[in-house]
Amino acid sequence: MSEPFNTWQDRFEKLRSNKLFETVVIAIIVVSALMIGARTYDEASQFEQWLMYLDVAVTVFFLVELLIRMAAERNLISFFKKGWNVFDFLIVTASLIPMDDSEMVLLARLLRIFRVLRLVSMIPELRLLLVSLVKSIPRMGYVALLMFIIFYIYAAIGSFIFHEVDEQLWGNIALAMLTLFQVATFESWATAVLYPTMEHFPYAWIYFLTFIFLNAFIFLNMMIGIVLDVMQKESALIDLESGEGEAAEIQGLRADVKALRSQLDRMEAALTQRADTPKIDRR
Amino acid sequence: MSEPFNTWQDRFEKLRSNKLFETVVIAIIVVSALMIGARTYDEASQFEQWLMYLDVAVTVFFLVELLIRMAAERNLISFFKKGWNVFDFLIVTASLIPMDDSEMVLLARLLRIFRVLRLVSMIPELRLLLVSLVKSIPRMGYVALLMFIIFYIYAAIGSFIFHEVDEQLWGNIALAMLTLFQVATFESWATAVLYPTMEHFPYAWIYFLTFIFLNAFIFLNMMIGIVLDVMQKESALIDLESGEGEAAEIQGLRADVKALRSQLDRMEAALTQRADTPKIDRR
Amino acid sequence: MSEPFNTWQDRFEKLRSNKLFETVVIAIIVVSALMIGARTYDEASQFEQWLMYLDVAVTVFFLVELLIRMAAERNLISFFKKGWNVFDFLIVTASLIPMDDSEMVLLARLLRIFRVLRLVSMIPELRLLLVSLVKSIPRMGYVALLMFIIFYIYAAIGSFIFHEVDEQLWGNIALAMLTLFQVATFESWATAVLYPTMEHFPYAWIYFLTFIFLNAFIFLNMMIGIVLDVMQKESALIDLESGEGEAAEIQGLRADVKALRSQLDRMEAALTQRADTPKIDRR
Amino acid sequence: MSEPFNTWQDRFEKLRSNKLFETVVIAIIVVSALMIGARTYDEASQFEQWLMYLDVAVTVFFLVELLIRMAAERNLISFFKKGWNVFDFLIVTASLIPMDDSEMVLLARLLRIFRVLRLVSMIPELRLLLVSLVKSIPRMGYVALLMFIIFYIYAAIGSFIFHEVDEQLWGNIALAMLTLFQVATFESWATAVLYPTMEHFPYAWIYFLTFIFLNAFIFLNMMIGIVLDVMQKESALIDLESGEGEAAEIQGLRADVKALRSQLDRMEAALTQRADTPKIDRR
Repeated sequence: MSEPFNTWQDRFEKLRSNKLFETVVIAIIVVSALMIGARTYDEASQFEQWLMYLDVAVTVFFLVELLIRMAAERNLISFFKKGWNVFDFLIVTASLIPMDDSEMVLLARLLRIFRVLRLVSMIPELRLLLVSLVKSIPRMGYVALLMFIIFYIYAAIGSFIFHEVDEQLWGNIALAMLTLFQVATFESWATAVLYPTMEHFPYAWIYFLTFIFLNAFIFLNMMIGIVLDVMQKESALIDLESGEGEAAEIQGLRADVKALRSQLDRMEAALTQRADTPKIDRR
Repeated sequence: MSEPFNTWQDRFEKLRSNKLFETVVIAIIVVSALMIGARTYDEASQFEQWLMYLDVAVTVFFLVELLIRMAAERNLISFFKKGWNVFDFLIVTASLIPMDDSEMVLLARLLRIFRVLRLVSMIPELRLLLVSLVKSIPRMGYVALLMFIIFYIYAAIGSFIFHEVDEQLWGNIALAMLTLFQVATFESWATAVLYPTMEHFPYAWIYFLTFIFLNAFIFLNMMIGIVLDVMQKESALIDLESGEGEAAEIQGLRADVKALRSQLDRMEAALTQRADTPKIDRR
Repeated sequence: MSEPFNTWQDRFEKLRSNKLFETVVIAIIVVSALMIGARTYDEASQFEQWLMYLDVAVTVFFLVELLIRMAAERNLISFFKKGWNVFDFLIVTASLIPMDDSEMVLLARLLRIFRVLRLVSMIPELRLLLVSLVKSIPRMGYVALLMFIIFYIYAAIGSFIFHEVDEQLWGNIALAMLTLFQVATFESWATAVLYPTMEHFPYAWIYFLTFIFLNAFIFLNMMIGIVLDVMQKESALIDLESGEGEAAEIQGLRADVKALRSQLDRMEAALTQRADTPKIDRR
Repeated sequence: MSEPFNTWQDRFEKLRSNKLFETVVIAIIVVSALMIGARTYDEASQFEQWLMYLDVAVTVFFLVELLIRMAAERNLISFFKKGWNVFDFLIVTASLIPMDDSEMVLLARLLRIFRVLRLVSMIPELRLLLVSLVKSIPRMGYVALLMFIIFYIYAAIGSFIFHEVDEQLWGNIALAMLTLFQVATFESWATAVLYPTMEHFPYAWIYFLTFIFLNAFIFLNMMIGIVLDVMQKESALIDLESGEGEAAEIQGLRADVKALRSQLDRMEAALTQRADTPKIDRR
């Protein structure tokens, strides 16, 4: 990066950390999001012209804001090393796709709606929330895999046995999995799925009840697992903190006792020194 | 406030802290609430006259009770500084709006029903509950904002893609958000929303399943966050309590060891003093 | 109680604590419960005779078992002081009501079904569960009261505004509370309650969404409150246990240090004693 | 086992712990599972020939893999002592059942679908999850029993009182329990169960609301119980860990203080020894 960019960098870093600037950017993101929402109302068509100007202004603003941040960074690689920068870059680039072609309009609009996600990168509390969400993905991954296996087995059984009852619910393994997901959310599982099936297979309730209990059981255990996980981290934190409190006190005590000992050593030496040679050194 | 009010203040403060008085006030609040409930029964019209007298009595009682409390306070500003006084003032004032005009009757009745909230300001346990509820609002605020962003994005996508399928569900972004809230509560989400949509868009299940998983995922993380929050406060409390127990013991020990040291200092001094000048003071 | 009863008491106490006896009693309770369940099948009528004999046997057995326990107790008052004895007495007495009269048959059967609750008094783990359930009632009481107030206010508002839309759902305050409970359980709240109402009152969603959020919010806080409560009890337990571990160690240490001090006192006295009178006693 | 098997054992143990081998086995399990899923699509019939070859290959692979593991073990008893080996043996044996007979085809397919469970025995994280699930069964058992008792009592009452309203819902105690399970999952409990019943029994809401509250109450307490359980184990772990930290420090301190004491003993002895006989030994 050339030198003028370094002074620009300082200016923009100041601008970025400016509370007012942040508020304006957040306001523009919200207005931009409301604008996209407004497009879904038919009455919004009369404001179309105004909305389009605002839309262009927002797009240009985001582009400039991103270019400034890229310039402020020492080089492009370090810019793209930060996950949030990649996040913002993708959103801004997506909004630059031209929307003249009638077919592309829908896609361009869909891409634009994701700009509201910039709110997340602007508000620190939301960034923290998203980071903690991303961190908890592996913890949930294996539980999800176990649940998928159970869904798969039940879906295969269901589509083998029940596919004659209702082709729409049990026609193939994908439909059966969707039906089981509906059952797992308790949506019309008895009136629309269980009872019609029980008319042909009176013991179908065994299939559904074991499925519901297995899922509820695994879900509960997942909850326990998460609570345990959180507690272990918490207790590690408590240990660290108490390390500065009680443990430090105890170590201070040990140091005091050692000082006592060396003093006693000196005194004992003084005692035995004065005691003449006939005394046996008991040390 | 003039002096007679100070004696009145004492009397009413005594009255307020009187268990019987509180019970009577609570009983009147409950009767007043039941009265409003009774109005919703058609058969209640025969008791109309009695109910109206009781209604006036309750309104007057609450007004007098509030005026007494206002007079008992040193000045109006200090009275309105307490949140619960403002809470009571608003409820009593609202019940004073005349209800002769037929149009206003409904509004007056609606305002009157809020008088049952005075139960909350009368019963200490309910006050504690409400205070803890109000305190937990900021903790939930950012999670709600994140969820709103997700709802907004999905609603925009949904109203763009699905608005041709069902105008009532996906007509505009507001309707789409309501539909998504219905999906998030699992109410007829499959039978009334997913399956009709899948007839036109066979891959609509991707939209709905990702939405449900995202919501469930964020909700679970919110739960974890709350548990963590509660635990941090709890561990802080435990630290404080143990500060009176174990930590105090350890500090007592250190004081004991220091006393030992000063005693040893004295003894060493006595030893070296008696040891004549040829001895080198080792201290 | 006369002396023969004391020997009977010993015998029956042995019988009660006998594993086999307990198993037999539990088996009879289960058979008795299955019998009542079997009555609900039409095909069961052919076993009627057998079932009746078994029924009498079970009734007699429970009566004898209870009388033995009453006799084993020193006096009737101490017998009825135990909650579980009252629990069993009520169940046995209820099953003694004659069931000849056709009108009473239904009532007698209903009373008899409660005999299955004796399983709870027989199995220690279930007794523990029930005791913990009963203990948690006050903790939940005030939350339930707060929720009732919210339900009442919303039901009053709902029955005032919406009673013209659907008399069956909003006809009076009791029906409105039932409808709101249905909404709180998310059962057809959107398709059967919200959308029909929104046709007349387009802003009805404000009423329903605030109600759902308030309820979810209070429920979540109740959960937090319970977790906090459990944790406080748990931390108290940990304190007690650690009192036998670490705290005891620290107190032992203090005793050791005090012993050191008294030894030093003796030594200092010896030192100063030998040091002749011109020395100033520094103590 | 003969000696050649011991060398085979070493080879296969190496093979088993080989990352690539594990990945291949997992891939084959997944393909085998997808194959069974594909059978549920009608379009899949054209690939039938290919699928059958793959099916045979998978079956043979699993058989060989199991035989190798059996041979690698010192004897058959020690092989079957491990739960996971029994688990795998049952799955492989089940897949060997011939599927020529048209009637057996369905059964053979159903047995084959369980082969996907081998994923659980292959992936260590899933094994851990399943082990923790199995361990939590007794903890949930008594709560399930208590819930069953409540369901049974309510089902008996329901089938006595309501069986005239709807034979399909309340015809016998088994149907009534199924209906109550539907109510407990909140599926159409109000629109399909409560309101039709209330037309004949206006006070039926008491029955349903008490049932729902009892269930929710017990479920909440079960959650509390599990959290408590998890916390007790967690606090035991913390105690163990802190035993290596703080408690060890305190014990070190005690040892230091004891060393001080023995040193003082020596010094006192030296002092009193030098003090001539007229001095009284104060010890």
